[in-house]
Amino acid sequence: MFKRLTYGMVGGSKDSQIGIVHRKAINLQGKAELVCGSFSRNFKNTLATGKELKIDEKRLYRNYEEMAEEESKRSDKIDFVSIVTPNSSHYEVAKKFLESGINVMCEKPLTITLKEAEELKQLARKNNLLFAVAYTFTGYSMLRYARELIKRGEIGEVRFINGRYLSEWMAKVPFAGKNSRHEWRSDPKVSGVSNCVADIGVHVENLVSFLTGLKIKSLNARMDKFVEPDRLDDNASILINYDNGAEGIYWTSQIAMGHENTLDIGIYGTKGSIEWSQEHANYLKISKVNHPFITLSRGSQEVDDFIKNDYVTPGGHQEGYVEAFARVYDKFISAITKKKKGELLEQRDLDFPTVEDGVEGMRFIEKCVESTEKGASWVEF
Amino acid sequence: MFKRLTYGMVGGSKDSQIGIVHRKAINLQGKAELVCGSFSRNFKNTLATGKELKIDEKRLYRNYEEMAEEESKRSDKIDFVSIVTPNSSHYEVAKKFLESGINVMCEKPLTITLKEAEELKQLARKNNLLFAVAYTFTGYSMLRYARELIKRGEIGEVRFINGRYLSEWMAKVPFAGKNSRHEWRSDPKVSGVSNCVADIGVHVENLVSFLTGLKIKSLNARMDKFVEPDRLDDNASILINYDNGAEGIYWTSQIAMGHENTLDIGIYGTKGSIEWSQEHANYLKISKVNHPFITLSRGSQEVDDFIKNDYVTPGGHQEGYVEAFARVYDKFISAITKKKKGELLEQRDLDFPTVEDGVEGMRFIEKCVESTEKGASWVEF
Amino acid sequence: MFKRLTYGMVGGSKDSQIGIVHRKAINLQGKAELVCGSFSRNFKNTLATGKELKIDEKRLYRNYEEMAEEESKRSDKIDFVSIVTPNSSHYEVAKKFLESGINVMCEKPLTITLKEAEELKQLARKNNLLFAVAYTFTGYSMLRYARELIKRGEIGEVRFINGRYLSEWMAKVPFAGKNSRHEWRSDPKVSGVSNCVADIGVHVENLVSFLTGLKIKSLNARMDKFVEPDRLDDNASILINYDNGAEGIYWTSQIAMGHENTLDIGIYGTKGSIEWSQEHANYLKISKVNHPFITLSRGSQEVDDFIKNDYVTPGGHQEGYVEAFARVYDKFISAITKKKKGELLEQRDLDFPTVEDGVEGMRFIEKCVESTEKGASWVEF
Amino acid sequence: MFKRLTYGMVGGSKDSQIGIVHRKAINLQGKAELVCGSFSRNFKNTLATGKELKIDEKRLYRNYEEMAEEESKRSDKIDFVSIVTPNSSHYEVAKKFLESGINVMCEKPLTITLKEAEELKQLARKNNLLFAVAYTFTGYSMLRYARELIKRGEIGEVRFINGRYLSEWMAKVPFAGKNSRHEWRSDPKVSGVSNCVADIGVHVENLVSFLTGLKIKSLNARMDKFVEPDRLDDNASILINYDNGAEGIYWTSQIAMGHENTLDIGIYGTKGSIEWSQEHANYLKISKVNHPFITLSRGSQEVDDFIKNDYVTPGGHQEGYVEAFARVYDKFISAITKKKKGELLEQRDLDFPTVEDGVEGMRFIEKCVESTEKGASWVEF
Repeated sequence: MFKRLTYGMVGGSKDSQIGIVHRKAINLQGKAELVCGSFSRNFKNTLATGKELKIDEKRLYRNYEEMAEEESKRSDKIDFVSIVTPNSSHYEVAKKFLESGINVMCEKPLTITLKEAEELKQLARKNNLLFAVAYTFTGYSMLRYARELIKRGEIGEVRFINGRYLSEWMAKVPFAGKNSRHEWRSDPKVSGVSNCVADIGVHVENLVSFLTGLKIKSLNARMDKFVEPDRLDDNASILINYDNGAEGIYWTSQIAMGHENTLDIGIYGTKGSIEWSQEHANYLKISKVNHPFITLSRGSQEVDDFIKNDYVTPGGHQEGYVEAFARVYDKFISAITKKKKGELLEQRDLDFPTVEDGVEGMRFIEKCVESTEKGASWVEF
Repeated sequence: MFKRLTYGMVGGSKDSQIGIVHRKAINLQGKAELVCGSFSRNFKNTLATGKELKIDEKRLYRNYEEMAEEESKRSDKIDFVSIVTPNSSHYEVAKKFLESGINVMCEKPLTITLKEAEELKQLARKNNLLFAVAYTFTGYSMLRYARELIKRGEIGEVRFINGRYLSEWMAKVPFAGKNSRHEWRSDPKVSGVSNCVADIGVHVENLVSFLTGLKIKSLNARMDKFVEPDRLDDNASILINYDNGAEGIYWTSQIAMGHENTLDIGIYGTKGSIEWSQEHANYLKISKVNHPFITLSRGSQEVDDFIKNDYVTPGGHQEGYVEAFARVYDKFISAITKKKKGELLEQRDLDFPTVEDGVEGMRFIEKCVESTEKGASWVEF
Repeated sequence: MFKRLTYGMVGGSKDSQIGIVHRKAINLQGKAELVCGSFSRNFKNTLATGKELKIDEKRLYRNYEEMAEEESKRSDKIDFVSIVTPNSSHYEVAKKFLESGINVMCEKPLTITLKEAEELKQLARKNNLLFAVAYTFTGYSMLRYARELIKRGEIGEVRFINGRYLSEWMAKVPFAGKNSRHEWRSDPKVSGVSNCVADIGVHVENLVSFLTGLKIKSLNARMDKFVEPDRLDDNASILINYDNGAEGIYWTSQIAMGHENTLDIGIYGTKGSIEWSQEHANYLKISKVNHPFITLSRGSQEVDDFIKNDYVTPGGHQEGYVEAFARVYDKFISAITKKKKGELLEQRDLDFPTVEDGVEGMRFIEKCVESTEKGASWVEF
Repeated sequence: MFKRLTYGMVGGSKDSQIGIVHRKAINLQGKAELVCGSFSRNFKNTLATGKELKIDEKRLYRNYEEMAEEESKRSDKIDFVSIVTPNSSHYEVAKKFLESGINVMCEKPLTITLKEAEELKQLARKNNLLFAVAYTFTGYSMLRYARELIKRGEIGEVRFINGRYLSEWMAKVPFAGKNSRHEWRSDPKVSGVSNCVADIGVHVENLVSFLTGLKIKSLNARMDKFVEPDRLDDNASILINYDNGAEGIYWTSQIAMGHENTLDIGIYGTKGSIEWSQEHANYLKISKVNHPFITLSRGSQEVDDFIKNDYVTPGGHQEGYVEAFARVYDKFISAITKKKKGELLEQRDLDFPTVEDGVEGMRFIEKCVESTEKGASWVEF
């Protein structure tokens, strides 16, 4: 009988927000167990977190290097590591675990430079390891079905894409004061070349790729620093040309007061369109030539038939963010399990955001910065 | 005692859509009366339209030149002319009336070149005439109040503006075939240099100016011809820099399937934001630092106080209520007219709520009272 | 040639809300002209209102009796009277005009007792006069189309009906104090046996009848007096049995804080359902067995085909658009009027889109084209 | 160090929907582990389910009696049992485990008669065991905050309550054919005296009690059997009088085409109102005297401060059904843990739906049936 997989975590101490979300998302499906970690640069914090999570103290490590080395020696070494540290350390941590023969799930953005991202991609291939990136939204049932509808040609050829990811927290900084999250997000030393585009804009880039498979040919980006002119971007307007002749317009913001976390995607084709919004994540708006507008819900028969092997929450009830994330992890864990059994992985088994997606995200960020530096002019992708 | 004003119309024959809308809009307030016109290049059509509108045949003109000349000679000449012809003739028609000393209301876009527009501006000034352009949306109560709030500094300094005007009719052309409207809208000979931007995009430009007073400093536009590559634009993505350092992003489209007529404006300032959407025209979404999101409705006390001298429809009801009510009256008046002519009224002519409906209403009220008085128990109707 | 009809009004002096709405609704279509009135019990008020409305002083009457008698003697007597007085006088006024051979449009509720209402019905029949009741909502395009769909059997046999008409003004009385509207609405001497049910609940009763043709067989009502226990009802819950075996549940309220004017109707049949809400009056939600949910809009082809002889506002725009446009024209006409009187126009008088705005629009269009032609690059404005 | 709790499950074989949801909800927080079960009356099915769930074969039981007896003898006996069988067996299963000294989480409705429910309540008290009922919606953050706001007096005294729980699946039975779920839900032998009220209407009863603490004094219910006249109810309209003088109106349906799972609650007080809808579970609409309408979101500072010890999903992202359910289980598991440590449980530790709530639900169902049988007349509660 096959046992549950085991995993470790780097970053994500008990007071951090993102570590908890990763752990809950894995818990939800119950197919992998947290057995080790280096949750903080402060070892006391790691110990306290480990105690709370009921982890054997022997597998609480002083730093990620020790963790990778010690785990790689064990016969029951972890099946994967989950990396939830700030952006600037993703590269070194992921590299270390890949070198130690351990599969990786890494938070986005994958790294802070495209070059690092490419290296990780090569290393994962060379070492024949699975590498996933935490693009959570790809796990939503309705986006998975939207992808299917587009693939089937339901909206014809894609012509135009509108994507927005809006938040407001940077606009509040002058009033509320900075907090630790603010500190590192807009700090180039920790976040790299971008704050807003790297943190949320990159989700739009990834979702468009996920939904349509279109490749960016060139882009024209205007990144702004409205709140802190001497730090990183808090808003960006981006025009896109895709390689099939389609075009796109993205807007991402941390100063759009009134938007805690608005993520909207509209895909407009020659025969119809599909629109989705994170705030109504259980619905698609579908429009077709000569047909009244359709609201397709997760509880409808056709969606139910499509997602039934995957789903958690009964139709009609709301599927939330953690369930989407659990689905991403589930696909990753299923692939590891299959590989561990010695079975051949097919393309369809890699149904999670991979290191290749992470690399494209980094390319997107760097190209946005390059375009902005050239006075918001067009750059080839 | 001052009488109602009088006006004439150029274009807008009985089968055109836009002429009717202008006439109804003027009728609504009842302060001006249509007394002359040259409704079509085809004089028979003008005569037929004039007859339907009960206009004195002597003031139905063969063309706009004749109309301007004849009217300018009359002691009771019209107070203004309403110009609702296709774009390419706005200039010559408006010019003629201005030269004849008559005030002008002209459909948008004002002309087909900037040069022509500037000329009209100079001419109106020189001749001391009033000249209005039919930017209809500026009349919405909630946009007028939004302008006021921005003026008062409620959202601080404007930082960023998002505007979208989306429609879908051009995307349907390959399926539905062209119709007369399609023919001229995308034809450079009639519409000038632009279809989509000139027809609807320009409303975004105007509303932003109306709401904020900001001036555009530079722009970067990508206009597309997705459906008819050899005619005019059907989609455009536009980045804007305003002169105060604020920025904007506009998207206007005639190929955004799923959008019959979506017009959204978001104004994001240093202290808050205001958002409005044509599909929920009776509401503003207002967000401020450290305050939950507000939905401000036309029926609220503060808006009521602001617009009370202007308004038509009681608060709470949609601006739209008057049109529903007008339909009720229209059915009633049509029945009276038919009866007055001595024609037999059929059941379908009584397509308004009748006294029988009123009686049933009274029965309902009395039965509700009776039931309540019996301790909320059942009563036969 | 047939002229416009003429009408008179009883009640609706210049400071009353409802009289204005009736007049605008009639103006909109421009098929009838107000020529006489007895707008108030106070004759001075009638004179002032008449002057403002430019009515011949000879046809301003001291009371409704005089008006009915004098008008009935004229060869050009009014074609109908519009009665917009408080509920308790509807009966006597309507009766007088029916006896004088004049068609009637009366505000709802028709009377204050069922007996009176029945009498008016008989009298109208006897004298062969048309008699309409101001159930405004029946004029909405989408409700007219919903009625058609139900008639065609699109939702099968009606099983269940949910109707709500909610407002909040009575809940505010203890905080805001009473005003004149409050005074009479909840006063049995003026309003009869009911306030809330008679004022708004009766619209639900009427709309259900309008949409489905179903007759009420029995009902069970619980009317409440939450705010003023010694006056009339401010809330009611009503269970209905219809004669075809269908059932309904109505809720009407003046104490439902958060609802300025919520009117929702849902009709549930054996094969599907239709739902409409006054706050989204331009849409129907239609659901059918084994079909995703449909949002049918007023701009859709099928609705357009159905209502085209009736409509005012172009599809896609909200019914409400005409009111916005009327405001634009109103500002323009007011400026012309002021100028004509020889008064000096100030900046605030030019509160309509001017030729300067039109020029800026043209600049915008030309600059968009210029930018596009330069490969979507930046151009100065 | 305290270990994770252990639990067993009765019902919920691998092909059942509800068992999976319970297991995921428990998994999410990771504080209890499934170690035994009797998942089906068919032992092969139990074995297959147990294998899939990686449970030790020795703790897979032929029936619930065996499970209760064997587990009660073990030193490592389960901390609680989760009962997810059809309604008619809840009583006997729960009774057996209570008699065996094991805490219980039971699906709703608690039993099929009030008498049985009362017995379970007594038994749990007598044996000093914790007993929770799966009223999932009480776990939603925004409902928990709504309860807090009402408690604080933010909306004043509650006057009126509107609750709706609507679905459509019974309306589809004549078209889609019955399936196993349909079979048992409307079958009196398995479901007891009610289908619709017992399955979903009871959630409204529970949520109102949860939010306001109000007790029902009397009710008037009309339960319908539109689809299967010879089986159980598929629709109900219920008028409520509460003991403080407040009133309510509930509508619950399985024939409301267009509604997969609509759950709306509105609480209207003397000073304001709070409204929540399951389809927008992350928001409250709050209205107060003389204040524009507020949309309070889960990501706002005040909600964040209130729920931060409890939450899973970052604000702005959507919290779904499983997360709500996880919170209910989390409160239950926390109470068991505290009790196991020998600490005294206070009232606030019992922050989950208890057997008392289950009893009230049964009383509600029986009273609805009684009222219906008396011709939809009033019955004391």
